[in-house]
Amino acid sequence: MIVVQTVKEMQELSKKYKIAGKSIGYVATMGFLHEGHLELVKRAREKDHIVVMSIFVNPTQFGPNEDFDQYPRDFERDRQLAQEHGVDILFYPSVSEMYPFEQTTEIHVVRRTDVLCGKSRPGHFEGVATVLFKLFHIVMPDNVYFGLKDAQQVAVIDGFLKDYFFPINLIPCPTVREEDGLAKSSRNVNLTAEERKEAPILYQSLREAKKMSEDGEYDADKILRFIYNKIEQSISGKIDYVEILSYPDLKPIKRLNGQVIIAIAVRYSKVRLIDNIIWTIGGGK
Amino acid sequence: MIVVQTVKEMQELSKKYKIAGKSIGYVATMGFLHEGHLELVKRAREKDHIVVMSIFVNPTQFGPNEDFDQYPRDFERDRQLAQEHGVDILFYPSVSEMYPFEQTTEIHVVRRTDVLCGKSRPGHFEGVATVLFKLFHIVMPDNVYFGLKDAQQVAVIDGFLKDYFFPINLIPCPTVREEDGLAKSSRNVNLTAEERKEAPILYQSLREAKKMSEDGEYDADKILRFIYNKIEQSISGKIDYVEILSYPDLKPIKRLNGQVIIAIAVRYSKVRLIDNIIWTIGGGK
Repeated sequence: MIVVQTVKEMQELSKKYKIAGKSIGYVATMGFLHEGHLELVKRAREKDHIVVMSIFVNPTQFGPNEDFDQYPRDFERDRQLAQEHGVDILFYPSVSEMYPFEQTTEIHVVRRTDVLCGKSRPGHFEGVATVLFKLFHIVMPDNVYFGLKDAQQVAVIDGFLKDYFFPINLIPCPTVREEDGLAKSSRNVNLTAEERKEAPILYQSLREAKKMSEDGEYDADKILRFIYNKIEQSISGKIDYVEILSYPDLKPIKRLNGQVIIAIAVRYSKVRLIDNIIWTIGGGK
Repeated sequence: MIVVQTVKEMQELSKKYKIAGKSIGYVATMGFLHEGHLELVKRAREKDHIVVMSIFVNPTQFGPNEDFDQYPRDFERDRQLAQEHGVDILFYPSVSEMYPFEQTTEIHVVRRTDVLCGKSRPGHFEGVATVLFKLFHIVMPDNVYFGLKDAQQVAVIDGFLKDYFFPINLIPCPTVREEDGLAKSSRNVNLTAEERKEAPILYQSLREAKKMSEDGEYDADKILRFIYNKIEQSISGKIDYVEILSYPDLKPIKRLNGQVIIAIAVRYSKVRLIDNIIWTIGGGK
């Protein structure tokens, strides 16, 4: 595995691979790797000749009151894990390498962000889009792998890839879960023992909601009420939102139809958990 | 020469050329070709293996009161000229091919547009940037050729290519001129005989201003006054602006230093002429 720290060197490598006819699979991360990230690497390893991972804690996607400075970092551990899991190139640039000067232009995300986490994190998805425009031009991947745990992020990426005809396939990957169904996250360690015990209710309620629709219930309000009741009765955390939307458009719907998402956020004492389920009505899976 | 009308086919061709190690030179136009465009093709023909030209009258760069519908079009003539001048691929998409659906994201140009033509054409450079983000991802050029007649456009392109690390070289090309110095433009045919006779004064005054600085005059106000006086005394048209700015930053300057631009716009009865001169103080050329 090669560690690359400059834009110039990364672009030269990618151009070389393209001329050699090698496909590039890319996993963008902010480091502090967990099984979710490594699952994305595994998928890339199966499909692409060359696997590139980036580790970059992107300042522009953190709000002024968010935890950019406190965001966990452990490069040595990450480097080890990336190597063990078959990453070929680890791109690890500095902030000044990625944001060398005042920009002439800005990316504005004008749809898919007035719902879910977008409501409470103004500017977050602008920061995500901005850094990914840069990274995609640096790494020049054929395939990019993102986890559906962050379903809204995947929807925004899907949007801008299509807007600007990036020659890149987006491969959304299923959320990796604990045995009891809790979505894996670095943040789960901040749950108390009791919170950890009740947290699987989130995914249980999502699965039961999906089952309701499979049994013929298409009324979004009824399904939402069911989830609210179930979660409020069972957990000590506070519901931040439960929403049913079309996917990936993320438009509010009254009746379930086509591809839909139900997404939940719950606030615990020290951590906010998110989870979601996406499926196509009448689509089997 | 191949005429390509779909994004998909153009991207497939470009990928094929990349794998074959061919460099792609790209000239983006709105058609109705003149010698300025063909000079760009000539430059690309000298430097690149494959020359791509696009013809696309981009609706998003026209204001609501501008002449999108009246913009001159003559595809058969353009096709002929492109072929004669050695274009390999003519990309000629429809509006619905380039703008197939409501976008999730927008490009905002936040610098380099509060001066010169940007002041009087709000949204124009957003439209230019938007369509070029798309076209650059479709054509995947190594080198892009733009004429310095539109110096502000070149500055905006230079800005966003660097902002997002597009793996593309921008090659600004000198303005093509008539024998008497008038910058070539499709619009010159709309000058009356008298206007056409006096129009070379624009470039003459720019050259004399440059000469003043070479002779030791670095005071921007003095040079501006000289140009205003010279032009106002000699022509029947009305001065829209004369500005001295740093280039490509396009920031106002009091003293000439580094790379600078002097740009002029003059409004005649039926046509508005623009011209400019760019040079580096102490830089010789």
